[in-house]
Amino acid sequence: MKRLAVVAFGGNALLLSGQQGSIDEQEKNAYETCEHLLALIRRDYNLVITHGNGPQVGNILLSDQAGVQLHGLPAMPLDICVAYSQGFIGYVIEQQLRNVLEAHELERDIITIITQVLVNKDDPAFQNPTKPIGPYYTKEEAQALMADGKSVFKEDARGRGWRKVVASPQPLVIGNQKSIEKLARDGQIVIAVGGGGIPAFYVQPNKLQGIDAVIDKDLASSILAVQIHADKFFILTDVPKVCLDFNTPQERTLDRMTLAEAKRYLKEGHFGEGSMAPKIRAAINFVEHTGKDTIITRTTLLGVDNGGTRITMV
Amino acid sequence: MKRLAVVAFGGNALLLSGQQGSIDEQEKNAYETCEHLLALIRRDYNLVITHGNGPQVGNILLSDQAGVQLHGLPAMPLDICVAYSQGFIGYVIEQQLRNVLEAHELERDIITIITQVLVNKDDPAFQNPTKPIGPYYTKEEAQALMADGKSVFKEDARGRGWRKVVASPQPLVIGNQKSIEKLARDGQIVIAVGGGGIPAFYVQPNKLQGIDAVIDKDLASSILAVQIHADKFFILTDVPKVCLDFNTPQERTLDRMTLAEAKRYLKEGHFGEGSMAPKIRAAINFVEHTGKDTIITRTTLLGVDNGGTRITMV
Repeated sequence: MKRLAVVAFGGNALLLSGQQGSIDEQEKNAYETCEHLLALIRRDYNLVITHGNGPQVGNILLSDQAGVQLHGLPAMPLDICVAYSQGFIGYVIEQQLRNVLEAHELERDIITIITQVLVNKDDPAFQNPTKPIGPYYTKEEAQALMADGKSVFKEDARGRGWRKVVASPQPLVIGNQKSIEKLARDGQIVIAVGGGGIPAFYVQPNKLQGIDAVIDKDLASSILAVQIHADKFFILTDVPKVCLDFNTPQERTLDRMTLAEAKRYLKEGHFGEGSMAPKIRAAINFVEHTGKDTIITRTTLLGVDNGGTRITMV
Repeated sequence: MKRLAVVAFGGNALLLSGQQGSIDEQEKNAYETCEHLLALIRRDYNLVITHGNGPQVGNILLSDQAGVQLHGLPAMPLDICVAYSQGFIGYVIEQQLRNVLEAHELERDIITIITQVLVNKDDPAFQNPTKPIGPYYTKEEAQALMADGKSVFKEDARGRGWRKVVASPQPLVIGNQKSIEKLARDGQIVIAVGGGGIPAFYVQPNKLQGIDAVIDKDLASSILAVQIHADKFFILTDVPKVCLDFNTPQERTLDRMTLAEAKRYLKEGHFGEGSMAPKIRAAINFVEHTGKDTIITRTTLLGVDNGGTRITMV
């Protein structure tokens, strides 16, 4: 049986920092990112691609808000905006990957799936929403928007204004996981779990409902990788390897770390909460549940010998 | 082998005329539409659901334009906006259909696929774009937007302003058709071809590119139904049956029409271009290529004996 890999694209798969995000830029970036997948495709891996949506869903929320303001359109909640972004980014990756495969005379079909992710209605994360999303508001605007008791706004630490904050609950079940595994093992490249998935929970026994929350895409990807029995899990980011004492004179890169070391370094606070820590947690989850390796690296080092940091069971 | 049906949801599956389109309204409408699918599910049909996106993509284009105006965001082209709408509408239908199935203790999995549709770069429709999309502009704004030579704007017949017009080329190949057939025959309900699909063509041999165009969703659904060897094709609309001499004193409804009759009535101009004519063409395409029946009816009459108009080979 062919090996199955899950590859979690980083936010810079489509949008590089400093770019405005025109569609030409995003298509070009997606093409270049997909070219690096050739290393895995040529080694005959079956593939599932997952991806973030941070900058894209940020722009979607801004546009949606602008449509409310200028045209009186009904506001779309966050779950719908995540669904928009899954359609958008999945389509762009699929199209550019089709172009990459054709340019290299490789025949693999590709399929993009809209993914819901089940979370627990009683997840403690809902008690303390921390993840800022969407546009900045003045204090007065934020207070007016909070008046319905449904949303929480917090002041930005860097004084840019007030922003809505939402919970980031634990992903429990990734929708369509059996189909994702089957399609991938049949040789199709599957694109799924965009933006960590659209979060939903049961508000009553037979009523699934999308919610104003975001799911960490590396963690959701890791849970999918476990559930579909993947043989390897790649987390792509913008640094070549994981570092200890990052950005200090003692900084050193790691070629390899065991599960126990990863847990210890995480506890010691080596990894930033907004950046490397969630990736390490996602790696730990995969290695711990499968005994197989996770590799954290830069897109350009995908499949390169000794590229990246390998997290292993022992 | 179980029978396979393609059901093309009408524009009013999510948004009824006169509604603003709040998410609560759209979810409620989707739930009620999906309840009518039970008639087919209980008869053990395998199902593929396709759907329109007119009002939703209209709002998306307005919001996108508002985001450009208010925040200087990069404008997203039409293919991306269609991809947004596939994510959105597919997600809402999937979630509400899951709720309907659970409420009736039926176990069927559901999967939503982002669908590209291949068209011909030299389709004659590109010479004469006719399909209006997006916001209205003043003559001066429209002329400024046409200056790049990439877009065509025309004055609205009812004097509401100028609007961009795009081509509606012939759909040739529906992306992922083999997977759609396989998933549906395995018993999953597949949601695909949203808004008629995201139109794309080859700008050069290895370069597939999304385009500013729209594809008729009934025709794309019909072509999919032929390609996946469906046994029956349902086109849902807001009238119970097809009429001749519609809206005249001679109006009469049809329970049944043969392929030859359908072609003749179409030629005689019985069917409105913006409404019934494309559905009749989609029905003709399916019946002619498969010898099997198409049924055009109102959602509430799905699976009801003698509900709707049946188009048959002979």
